[in-house]
Amino acid sequence: MAYGPDQIAEQADATLADVRRARGSTPVLWVGVDGLADTTLLQGLADSFGLHRLALEDVINVHQRPKVENYSDRVFVVVRMALSEQDASTEQFALFLGPDFLLTFQERPDDCLDPVRRRLREGRGSIRGLNADYLAYALIDAAVDSYFPVLETYGERLEDLELAVVDSPDPELVETLHLMKRDLLAMRRAIWPHRETVNALIRDETPLITETTRLYLRDTYDHATQLIDIVETSREIASGLVDMYISNASARLNEIMKVLTIIATVFMPIGFLASLYGMNFDSATSPWNMPELGWRYGYPVTLLIMTLVAGGLLAFFWRRRWIGMGGPRGRRRRRRLRANGTEEG
Amino acid sequence: MAYGPDQIAEQADATLADVRRARGSTPVLWVGVDGLADTTLLQGLADSFGLHRLALEDVINVHQRPKVENYSDRVFVVVRMALSEQDASTEQFALFLGPDFLLTFQERPDDCLDPVRRRLREGRGSIRGLNADYLAYALIDAAVDSYFPVLETYGERLEDLELAVVDSPDPELVETLHLMKRDLLAMRRAIWPHRETVNALIRDETPLITETTRLYLRDTYDHATQLIDIVETSREIASGLVDMYISNASARLNEIMKVLTIIATVFMPIGFLASLYGMNFDSATSPWNMPELGWRYGYPVTLLIMTLVAGGLLAFFWRRRWIGMGGPRGRRRRRRLRANGTEEG
Amino acid sequence: MAYGPDQIAEQADATLADVRRARGSTPVLWVGVDGLADTTLLQGLADSFGLHRLALEDVINVHQRPKVENYSDRVFVVVRMALSEQDASTEQFALFLGPDFLLTFQERPDDCLDPVRRRLREGRGSIRGLNADYLAYALIDAAVDSYFPVLETYGERLEDLELAVVDSPDPELVETLHLMKRDLLAMRRAIWPHRETVNALIRDETPLITETTRLYLRDTYDHATQLIDIVETSREIASGLVDMYISNASARLNEIMKVLTIIATVFMPIGFLASLYGMNFDSATSPWNMPELGWRYGYPVTLLIMTLVAGGLLAFFWRRRWIGMGGPRGRRRRRRLRANGTEEG
Amino acid sequence: MAYGPDQIAEQADATLADVRRARGSTPVLWVGVDGLADTTLLQGLADSFGLHRLALEDVINVHQRPKVENYSDRVFVVVRMALSEQDASTEQFALFLGPDFLLTFQERPDDCLDPVRRRLREGRGSIRGLNADYLAYALIDAAVDSYFPVLETYGERLEDLELAVVDSPDPELVETLHLMKRDLLAMRRAIWPHRETVNALIRDETPLITETTRLYLRDTYDHATQLIDIVETSREIASGLVDMYISNASARLNEIMKVLTIIATVFMPIGFLASLYGMNFDSATSPWNMPELGWRYGYPVTLLIMTLVAGGLLAFFWRRRWIGMGGPRGRRRRRRLRANGTEEG
Amino acid sequence: MAYGPDQIAEQADATLADVRRARGSTPVLWVGVDGLADTTLLQGLADSFGLHRLALEDVINVHQRPKVENYSDRVFVVVRMALSEQDASTEQFALFLGPDFLLTFQERPDDCLDPVRRRLREGRGSIRGLNADYLAYALIDAAVDSYFPVLETYGERLEDLELAVVDSPDPELVETLHLMKRDLLAMRRAIWPHRETVNALIRDETPLITETTRLYLRDTYDHATQLIDIVETSREIASGLVDMYISNASARLNEIMKVLTIIATVFMPIGFLASLYGMNFDSATSPWNMPELGWRYGYPVTLLIMTLVAGGLLAFFWRRRWIGMGGPRGRRRRRRLRANGTEEG
Repeated sequence: MAYGPDQIAEQADATLADVRRARGSTPVLWVGVDGLADTTLLQGLADSFGLHRLALEDVINVHQRPKVENYSDRVFVVVRMALSEQDASTEQFALFLGPDFLLTFQERPDDCLDPVRRRLREGRGSIRGLNADYLAYALIDAAVDSYFPVLETYGERLEDLELAVVDSPDPELVETLHLMKRDLLAMRRAIWPHRETVNALIRDETPLITETTRLYLRDTYDHATQLIDIVETSREIASGLVDMYISNASARLNEIMKVLTIIATVFMPIGFLASLYGMNFDSATSPWNMPELGWRYGYPVTLLIMTLVAGGLLAFFWRRRWIGMGGPRGRRRRRRLRANGTEEG
Repeated sequence: MAYGPDQIAEQADATLADVRRARGSTPVLWVGVDGLADTTLLQGLADSFGLHRLALEDVINVHQRPKVENYSDRVFVVVRMALSEQDASTEQFALFLGPDFLLTFQERPDDCLDPVRRRLREGRGSIRGLNADYLAYALIDAAVDSYFPVLETYGERLEDLELAVVDSPDPELVETLHLMKRDLLAMRRAIWPHRETVNALIRDETPLITETTRLYLRDTYDHATQLIDIVETSREIASGLVDMYISNASARLNEIMKVLTIIATVFMPIGFLASLYGMNFDSATSPWNMPELGWRYGYPVTLLIMTLVAGGLLAFFWRRRWIGMGGPRGRRRRRRLRANGTEEG
Repeated sequence: MAYGPDQIAEQADATLADVRRARGSTPVLWVGVDGLADTTLLQGLADSFGLHRLALEDVINVHQRPKVENYSDRVFVVVRMALSEQDASTEQFALFLGPDFLLTFQERPDDCLDPVRRRLREGRGSIRGLNADYLAYALIDAAVDSYFPVLETYGERLEDLELAVVDSPDPELVETLHLMKRDLLAMRRAIWPHRETVNALIRDETPLITETTRLYLRDTYDHATQLIDIVETSREIASGLVDMYISNASARLNEIMKVLTIIATVFMPIGFLASLYGMNFDSATSPWNMPELGWRYGYPVTLLIMTLVAGGLLAFFWRRRWIGMGGPRGRRRRRRLRANGTEEG
Repeated sequence: MAYGPDQIAEQADATLADVRRARGSTPVLWVGVDGLADTTLLQGLADSFGLHRLALEDVINVHQRPKVENYSDRVFVVVRMALSEQDASTEQFALFLGPDFLLTFQERPDDCLDPVRRRLREGRGSIRGLNADYLAYALIDAAVDSYFPVLETYGERLEDLELAVVDSPDPELVETLHLMKRDLLAMRRAIWPHRETVNALIRDETPLITETTRLYLRDTYDHATQLIDIVETSREIASGLVDMYISNASARLNEIMKVLTIIATVFMPIGFLASLYGMNFDSATSPWNMPELGWRYGYPVTLLIMTLVAGGLLAFFWRRRWIGMGGPRGRRRRRRLRANGTEEG
Repeated sequence: MAYGPDQIAEQADATLADVRRARGSTPVLWVGVDGLADTTLLQGLADSFGLHRLALEDVINVHQRPKVENYSDRVFVVVRMALSEQDASTEQFALFLGPDFLLTFQERPDDCLDPVRRRLREGRGSIRGLNADYLAYALIDAAVDSYFPVLETYGERLEDLELAVVDSPDPELVETLHLMKRDLLAMRRAIWPHRETVNALIRDETPLITETTRLYLRDTYDHATQLIDIVETSREIASGLVDMYISNASARLNEIMKVLTIIATVFMPIGFLASLYGMNFDSATSPWNMPELGWRYGYPVTLLIMTLVAGGLLAFFWRRRWIGMGGPRGRRRRRRLRANGTEEG
């Protein structure tokens, strides 16, 4: 796994001896180590290329924050790249830059660096004509850019959730939003230090990085800033959705309570009337005892009174706007939101 | 689409050759490119005017953050201008300033730059007597100012929403507020970097921008600061409205529950009494069995007791202030808010 | 409206010619322009005193943020003063300071500057013996101090609202609080830049402002800082009141629901019993059919059971502390809060 | 009230003449003024010791923010000290430091400075051997430390409130928490500027303050930082308690509604059955009319059905975990929290 | 308790005399004091090693914030280390570094420093070959790293709580979350100043700390930054869980209210019908009085109407999606969350 650009020579599964031999024979040597289990190999590389003990420890301990460390004529950079477009998992990617070589360390054989490798192989662009620092830039840029598809995935999910919050009042949504906020928090934690790291690379006065590469790194810096912007915006939108869910839930509770209140309020008085005339006072013993039961129109009049009471209460609720809020509106709302989402996409 | 001010000459649909010819013949040459599809044209312009490859990439990739980049004797500026007064969509506007020329790139034929063009054509103000940097200032200022009408639209919508939150308890409002907050978030993201960008133009020690133009740019800086102020205030007002909606909803729930509780509390005890005397205990078999049913005034006394119970409960609710909160007050409230809104406008 | 201090001479409705004549004849000349409609007058003044075109534009456009702008031997300052103690409206006040003159521009004849004018007329303090920069300080200080009574009014209103939130559970309060928060937001936006402005005046190395005046301006700076403190505190208190309103509303809902639940829980079981013995099973056809109705003590025993059930449930609620929360406590609470408010005032 | 350390001489109720005489005769002279009503005395002191007019105004106007002001060979410091351990009230304490004297001004005879005075009288520590700047440090340190007992009182009250929020669901708690948050806000406003003030004393290059005293002031700076930490933490805990109260209230509402729902759901169906067989359809006119009433086991079967329905519903609620949440748990919870509180204390 | 590395000599319970003798005889002398009660010992050490009186006070007063203080050729550092993995309690650890010695002070015999001591005894790594400043680094690093297991414990607890919030709707959870947030607040307060402290050690220009040790301290700085990151993330997750609990509780309330409303809405109308035909109007006196009771199919038709009403209402609720939300979904949810948690762990 040793590459030499310019008169491109590539060798997979190279041994330590191969690497040592290759050094010096090409203007730029890129040694890419996949997998950090073989400590003797790592130690050998560290010895050959003058990698500081502390830096080597940082390579092996894969939970480092992105950072730059300057050693006299070497630069050690740690960045993290997104592993999958589906979640917030990241992988550490360590670069060790010398005047004529670049060592990179990662755990898994890589995806997001493939484009760089292809550009090297095909000799596209100016990449083969430039120094190791440009290669480092290209790799760091690829690592930073690897977050864009992840954030796009999250953005799409947020739009789906936006529709779902309006459509279906499911408490599961809040959990999904919670998981998403946790992921976005992890993303922010992962992305944030990249900006400082790239900025440190731009400002640090190491002779290893040329003015031209610094110009390119400014671009990477802009990308990191943009990523942070997107993460922050996504987090605020997610928080807004939780608020919207809660206020929707409380609106639904209000609607449920209205139904209950209307039913109870209409049926309780008329039910009371019915119970009243179900009493068994003995009209035989006294003319005062429920004479209504013996009246000619007692029953129809009672029914009429019940109808009037129920109608009056319904009219009262209608005037208070508790009745008459439609169902079709919901559908219109959803359409509006969907249109809005599409327009923006 | 090439303009030369001072002895104003304007040519639409100019070819690359026209532009090359025009260069040098006028003190200031403004080449405004609308539409970024024609890459050979862009490449040609880049070659003629010494536009850096990275800057050209930024021109074509229309999702840049506003920024300034200094190349020895060129300044490359990216700003974004508001596209429509109705939503938060923006368009990238790239300027490339040299000692005697200004290249501008945008996707669509422009609106918000028309006033500048008119001032050029009519020779109004001092714009034609000044250098390309003043033209750049005028265009940047126009781009920044393009956000004012958008924010005014949002401000008016917020005032409408304020009334709506008081008037009509519609859960749709929360979604509208959510969309508005999302838009304001996007606006903030769009406007925020303009301030840094203009500030960088003011402070950077490039000889291309004269002291006078820097004075004018301070004005643009003030405008950007004002825009950020307005966006932040609007966002806080929108958040306040969501809170107000929620507390209004909970107030309405309280009112609904009060109605239910009053009805249930009044009718349950008297309904129980009615049920009680609907029991069929056989008063023939025992004098202990419901002798009330045979009393002379049993029924009237029962009715009296029911009236007293119901009246007592209503008095209890009235003392607890559950009854007697009026309807006319709502209308007064709305009027007050409207008055307030007008006074401020 | 031209004043010359030291050998105080005051002239209302002065013409441009008067002003030109007065210039040079007094050590300090203060020209106060009320109303910005007369553009020829403004242009004339600008020409006479060397006011930059941009500054003049800022004078006319009355929606500037407070700021300082240094022109070689002139200083242009914009501040805003509170217009009324009742709301957050402000008025722009522009000062243009030269070595021996001070031009001030405002829209309306002023209130908050009267004390300064009186001190000039009466020759109190050292104001007449000092330069135009001290006059500028005195006016800026008066403008900044004009916010104190406004904030005091808001503070008193907040205290009233605090009592109201405890006393009367009115949804209108939330709207009042919302309006107040909007106003405080506007106040913050108005006051915040004054601090920078005054600080800029203190630090800027213009020879127009003497060391002594800078000492005095430090006092104005302290005042601006204090104002910002007060606004921020008021905003946090207003937010706290909204929270308190919401938690009070939810407490009231709980109380309402308790009443409903207690009533329903007590009357449903005993109402069921009454209904049960209201059934018409024919005890003649079968000894299994409701023999209770024919028992000697059927009715009294039923009443006893009902009393026991109701009493048991009430005891259950009492043990759960749902019953027995008093009314007099509310009054005590209010008194406590009022005492607290007075003590602080 | 004039003190001269080293060969300690102390005089209460000293006149201006006494003070003038004392000056120069001792290496260090401390003049402590209690009460600011006697303006001629203050003016006299100001004249004798060269106190600037602005500083004197700050002394009299007792609502200053803490600050440092350097005059050529004098330093004027304003701090505020806590007045009482029970609330957030503070008192202004102004110090005016010269090479061989220290003037202090406060409104009330002091408490928190007594320890310093005692150390002076008893000659304990090195305080009498050092200069006036050390005395100033000792007094400022005492003033800053006066906030510790206040914050401890608040901390204890917060712990009590924590228990109360769990124990007793009283809406009064939210008001108490609101008052506490308001007080903590006032405390923060009072304490915050002390840090800057002390820092300014440490960094300012005045010859009046020796290196050694600066070392001691670093300690005061640490204390101020710690105080701010404690205030911020207390504020966040208070906010957390409001959240906890609200979620507890909503939990209680849920519990109340469960009771209501269970009761209603159990008794409504069986009550309906009872009502059903209370209907008076005439079984004599038609065999279809309620033949159940004449069945031999009609009544017992009806009772059985009712029992089955009620039992089934209770089983349903039990499975949904609506029934079976205990009472003893509450007590356990309280004990846990109390234990936790004690452990921390 | 005196150690001399290089030709390692270790002595427990050493007296002051032992320490004085040991000084000078070894290249590096580490005096570790456990327990701060013996003030004469402390005073003796302070005198022997030139410990400033203020530093000694800081050693004894064990509530210091972490900080660095430079005295000419001595460095005094205070850090705090986590005491237990279960809670947020910390212990003060003070270091006093001279050219050839290191004094450390702590209250309890230590745990988290044992690895360092072991490395010294076994002569592993380069620790014995290096100076006292490296030993100081190793101890500070151990103290900072002591927070990692505590935060891991909290992280695991948060994951448990996440499951619990979904699983069991227990108000106790909010209290647990409140306690956790309080602890995390305390952790933040404890960890935050370590970063500044370590940074001060890196930047301060004391000759006591070599370039190499500064390199190592950068690692400690990274760890402190990581700790702060973790604490902040944990706090935001805890806040998110409180939100989730509240929205879950409100979802449950909605569900409870739905059950109640459905039951009440179904049984109230049919119960009313039953009551209606339980009225005792005397059909003998008038053909208008309840002729239905004498109809042939009166009872079956009434039952049919009741069934239709109940069925219609249930259909209405089903269409509004109030019925039909399953139970198995809950279990699926929990499984999903658990899977997610495991994947991340």
